[in-house]
Amino acid sequence: MVIEIGKHFDLLPPLCKGMKIVLIADIALKKLYAEKLAQHLNALLIYIPSGEKAKTREIKQQIEDQLFKAGCGRDTVILAMGGGATTDVVGFVAATYLRGVPLILIPTTLLAMVDAAIGGKTGINTEFGKNMLGSIYFPKTIVFDYEFLDSLPEVERMNGMSEILKMGLIANPELLKGVDIERAAKTKMAIVEQDPYEKGLRRILNFGHTVAHALERLSNYTIPHGQAVAIGCVVESYLSLSLGYLSRKDFDQIETFFPIYRLPASYKRKAFLQAMTADKKNKGGQVRFVLIDQIGRAMPFDGEYCRPVSDKELEGTLSYMEKRYG
Amino acid sequence: MVIEIGKHFDLLPPLCKGMKIVLIADIALKKLYAEKLAQHLNALLIYIPSGEKAKTREIKQQIEDQLFKAGCGRDTVILAMGGGATTDVVGFVAATYLRGVPLILIPTTLLAMVDAAIGGKTGINTEFGKNMLGSIYFPKTIVFDYEFLDSLPEVERMNGMSEILKMGLIANPELLKGVDIERAAKTKMAIVEQDPYEKGLRRILNFGHTVAHALERLSNYTIPHGQAVAIGCVVESYLSLSLGYLSRKDFDQIETFFPIYRLPASYKRKAFLQAMTADKKNKGGQVRFVLIDQIGRAMPFDGEYCRPVSDKELEGTLSYMEKRYG
Repeated sequence: MVIEIGKHFDLLPPLCKGMKIVLIADIALKKLYAEKLAQHLNALLIYIPSGEKAKTREIKQQIEDQLFKAGCGRDTVILAMGGGATTDVVGFVAATYLRGVPLILIPTTLLAMVDAAIGGKTGINTEFGKNMLGSIYFPKTIVFDYEFLDSLPEVERMNGMSEILKMGLIANPELLKGVDIERAAKTKMAIVEQDPYEKGLRRILNFGHTVAHALERLSNYTIPHGQAVAIGCVVESYLSLSLGYLSRKDFDQIETFFPIYRLPASYKRKAFLQAMTADKKNKGGQVRFVLIDQIGRAMPFDGEYCRPVSDKELEGTLSYMEKRYG
Repeated sequence: MVIEIGKHFDLLPPLCKGMKIVLIADIALKKLYAEKLAQHLNALLIYIPSGEKAKTREIKQQIEDQLFKAGCGRDTVILAMGGGATTDVVGFVAATYLRGVPLILIPTTLLAMVDAAIGGKTGINTEFGKNMLGSIYFPKTIVFDYEFLDSLPEVERMNGMSEILKMGLIANPELLKGVDIERAAKTKMAIVEQDPYEKGLRRILNFGHTVAHALERLSNYTIPHGQAVAIGCVVESYLSLSLGYLSRKDFDQIETFFPIYRLPASYKRKAFLQAMTADKKNKGGQVRFVLIDQIGRAMPFDGEYCRPVSDKELEGTLSYMEKRYG
């Protein structure tokens, strides 16, 4: 995984040299970027739907069949241009096409730059949940072209900001001092490189997400990811406080980093607890949380980097959440 | 990858301890082995069709949906029991289910023991060819229970023998002195561990297979794999001789290791040459061959471990093949 920063028009030709090129792009980028780039690179161009609608078995199969029909062999490089949903599904295609072909990611949202495109997680959804199928597959290169961010909607900016702040809380307090996209991406990369298959350390990236995923599920995925993560980070910091790990002083500061959003209208404590037990990192049915003992440091818990928390231990934290965000 | 040798009934319980167990077995093993083992392990049991019929997107999806419905999480271990087709498709399921769950292989054929189950290649077929989708995913453990081989049909025995002899020719001449299943598996494992993603050295395992795959394609996959590989090993040894790398003495000995089979009835030289150009390891349309310069040694060719051979250079070799096997 190498990040290259600059104009994608200039960076890509040398990266793809001598290979057959396929550009798979979010259809929303057609007019502004994708057509021009495909022409510039003389690439086969495939469009996929915007957002989560692209993350299905059907779209994966459609892409694969287009690659087969075009006779794409192992000398093909696949370029994924779009947000996190695009890099997720296209990354999964690249991971399994002929058992893996080279992949270059061109993330076009802040969230994709600092999170989805970094770390090799690829995946699609099924009727049973999000990212239920996928693999860990690393791109050769990730191209950062900040021009894409000029037209980024506010909700998208906030999705990325929440993840940057999360990485500040668990690993790198510098990230809490001002937006630094490259530093955020490299913070995540350093964690992933130490534990690509999430046997331990990588779990800290789930900080805030046990709560966030449950909120997303409860809202039927209508709450923006960045809002859910912002709430999750503060709530899981409160949990760290209530369990005696985090100081009140640090917690009070953490509260100030995040805007206050509203819980989904459908929020009910019992349903929320149930939604949390479906979390992927659970073991034996108990909900496990990543916790911090100071700003910038997730707790190791003997290499597990998370610990089970009982419903009883959660009570005060849920009351806090309901009061602050209800 | 660890090989454990013994009675599968005894070896498996400690290997699966504390995990939810799913046994996915070739339906042909139902009565004799699968039912009993599933009961012994208290495992969820899923049957798949025998042979290549199991290696489809549809079967993969059916298995996945059964796992989802049973609520299988990351604390699930998947056991694959059957021949190479079974370990291929089940391995691919394990590789992509929740981005990867632990996998134990229980190969029941000689070919699967010395080849398919070793090395992490998983895959399914599409209408565009064999193993067009898949991944490199390593099992935790491979269980060898030689009792499975007692009832093995002759054609299956020969499929495994050809691969053992091939590994003798490229890497370990000891394998040419008598059947040693464990040694054969470990010879392959040592090659794979040096180059899991087939950037170079691992290509030597394709010795004999450029010819073999083309013969299989020509015959519409009616010629047994072991026969195709037996012909391929001798023919590619002849190519090594004709290009001046291999001695006549070594070649004459190699001829004696393999029985003489017949080419497919549909064999025509032009169609055969065309079928070879579809090979996965080709680059820029030129057919590349693994070659040997003595019994037990594949040639490195600057780390490529194969070299392009022109149609003209192939002529004498094809005449040899047509004469010996026609």
